[in-house]
Amino acid sequence: MDSTISQLAQCFENLPGIGPRQARRFVYALLKKNDKFISDFTKLMLDIKKELIKCETCQCFFKNNKQNKNCKICRNPQRDKGVLLVVEKDIDLNNIESANSYNGLYYVLGGLVPPIGAKLPEEVRMKELFEKVKQMTMSKNLKEIILAFSATKEGENTEQYIKSILEPIVQKYPFKISLLGRGLSTGTELEYADRDTLKNALRRRD
Amino acid sequence: MDSTISQLAQCFENLPGIGPRQARRFVYALLKKNDKFISDFTKLMLDIKKELIKCETCQCFFKNNKQNKNCKICRNPQRDKGVLLVVEKDIDLNNIESANSYNGLYYVLGGLVPPIGAKLPEEVRMKELFEKVKQMTMSKNLKEIILAFSATKEGENTEQYIKSILEPIVQKYPFKISLLGRGLSTGTELEYADRDTLKNALRRRD
Amino acid sequence: MDSTISQLAQCFENLPGIGPRQARRFVYALLKKNDKFISDFTKLMLDIKKELIKCETCQCFFKNNKQNKNCKICRNPQRDKGVLLVVEKDIDLNNIESANSYNGLYYVLGGLVPPIGAKLPEEVRMKELFEKVKQMTMSKNLKEIILAFSATKEGENTEQYIKSILEPIVQKYPFKISLLGRGLSTGTELEYADRDTLKNALRRRD
Amino acid sequence: MDSTISQLAQCFENLPGIGPRQARRFVYALLKKNDKFISDFTKLMLDIKKELIKCETCQCFFKNNKQNKNCKICRNPQRDKGVLLVVEKDIDLNNIESANSYNGLYYVLGGLVPPIGAKLPEEVRMKELFEKVKQMTMSKNLKEIILAFSATKEGENTEQYIKSILEPIVQKYPFKISLLGRGLSTGTELEYADRDTLKNALRRRD
Repeated sequence: MDSTISQLAQCFENLPGIGPRQARRFVYALLKKNDKFISDFTKLMLDIKKELIKCETCQCFFKNNKQNKNCKICRNPQRDKGVLLVVEKDIDLNNIESANSYNGLYYVLGGLVPPIGAKLPEEVRMKELFEKVKQMTMSKNLKEIILAFSATKEGENTEQYIKSILEPIVQKYPFKISLLGRGLSTGTELEYADRDTLKNALRRRD
Repeated sequence: MDSTISQLAQCFENLPGIGPRQARRFVYALLKKNDKFISDFTKLMLDIKKELIKCETCQCFFKNNKQNKNCKICRNPQRDKGVLLVVEKDIDLNNIESANSYNGLYYVLGGLVPPIGAKLPEEVRMKELFEKVKQMTMSKNLKEIILAFSATKEGENTEQYIKSILEPIVQKYPFKISLLGRGLSTGTELEYADRDTLKNALRRRD
Repeated sequence: MDSTISQLAQCFENLPGIGPRQARRFVYALLKKNDKFISDFTKLMLDIKKELIKCETCQCFFKNNKQNKNCKICRNPQRDKGVLLVVEKDIDLNNIESANSYNGLYYVLGGLVPPIGAKLPEEVRMKELFEKVKQMTMSKNLKEIILAFSATKEGENTEQYIKSILEPIVQKYPFKISLLGRGLSTGTELEYADRDTLKNALRRRD
Repeated sequence: MDSTISQLAQCFENLPGIGPRQARRFVYALLKKNDKFISDFTKLMLDIKKELIKCETCQCFFKNNKQNKNCKICRNPQRDKGVLLVVEKDIDLNNIESANSYNGLYYVLGGLVPPIGAKLPEEVRMKELFEKVKQMTMSKNLKEIILAFSATKEGENTEQYIKSILEPIVQKYPFKISLLGRGLSTGTELEYADRDTLKNALRRRD
């Protein structure tokens, strides 16, 4: 086996969900593409790191146009500056935006809090969130923080963790900390719903 | 192939989710069991139709003890007689009971309303539900009807259908018709949540 | 929950591949069936143990007509009495018969040999196979024994085990012990084929 | 959504088995990588098209060292020049090599023959194979051609197609055309084996 193939396959294995077999198929798929495809592809890969920068306020990636340090959402005067929705990652933010049901601001945390005992990964911007909330309470009439994480163990850990670190601020500047509503999600069959989901669905009935 | 095997396999194929191959495996599995197992099994199958009868009030199956025409839940004086939760089938009722979060009465509808155009299956007790609700409004201070169906197309059709037939009664005797809360169910990842689920999760946040 | 329901559900859980949830669904499915279905179903379950007996020569189940102690295949004068194909279970025998490619006799072993160290399950008729082969070598001009087991660890263990116990007989009465051919099976993609399958496919090319 | 993200995601969607969601996850995964990773990755992508060239004799990709126009296998004097194994693609060739059971030459066809009626895709080097075989019959004492395709409809079409175009040559220069052996592949359970696999497994028993 050729070593360049192996090296390139290893790069592909760094992408989420890609194992050795599929990585190798990717390499052979590239070999079949014409030169223009490859040069466009690599150019975009190099460009994206320059073109996309992190918004200074919400930490989401956005197109670097050299005039702004903030993303479109943060610059939009129509968005409600009193509500902050915290998500794990950019894709979650995009998914919520595409649901067209939220008009406040965002904060991209960068990761979730692992099970108790494990160390907080450095990509999780917990201190930065804390600072941001403190500023918002003072200057911007913060009304609500929505913790919008996956309904998983890690998501719940993160909710608990953030609630505990924000507690001292909440007591001084009264704003609300809310969680996404739990209940039946599209497609859930009552027969197979777990106890927690049923409890929440009953409690939040309307 | 022996015809008794085929006939018995066909009986097993009448059970939900069982195809020809698995049905045949069941037959050979029975052939390996001892006589006592088979006689106990068949006795229980014959008994169950005699022992279990439908509760006259909620239509769930319960143990026939010849003294009562109503199930334990309907007879329980502690249950809130002003709330009626309508489910599709017995298993849904059992699942909700095991969540330990509901203390009202039930009604087992017997099936769901198919997509528009299709005929209402005769096992769906829609008229009986209508009559029951009429009686409850007059005699029992009905406060709320909870429509507790799966978050599927058929479940939603059934909600709409019941709301429309109950409308004339609701206008005279004001009770509430509520639906199970929608939102993130246990395990839902934000990245993969559909638009409706996200909308509901945001709307019902707390 | 009613105890008759639980007891009947437990019977269904004894069938291969059925868990508690599906067992309970089966019970409720039965409750919806009419009395005739239940009485036919249970009658067939009781009958099958009487109607089907094990063939004295090959150990497969066949219809008991009180005149014969042997199944149709064993009684068929057209079948080649010099070839014996050993299978694990009745369903394997049926599957091979339906392929219409074999005209010898069968022997149903009743089970497979577990990994080394584990005890030989008593349902595996190894001694009986040994006796049968001994008789066939003396009286019936045995030409070949085909060991037809699944291409799994247990299947291969069983092949080894049988070969070793038959070795002393093979040396006296020369007959052939053969295994099912290995190679690409329908649907196998070359890219995903394991090493053994490729080796066999190359070796048995034609 | 940013257009560079969309464009790069579309490039990833050109890789086999990658849909829009996963493509987008790849983009965000890249954004998290450091500059060195990206520059190595893109360099390898650009290099591979230069470094790897197609072997003039077997059409497999191999490392371009400017001295050779042929891959290692084709140059290896130990390989049996009288046997040619035809595969669909490089990955199949690699998989067979790693099985360590074949010592002849290869030919990478580039694709399979589609169902009857559909046009032969231009990446399928059928003419070139024909020319190659003609030459081998004259100069190199060709003894055997092994058609080594997946056991699928397309694989079988390809076998039939090649056999028919080689027929005129086979009649003049007698060499053998063989197919990979069919039978039970690793893991196949007898109970679920299809008719063709069983027939082949019985026919090729040994």
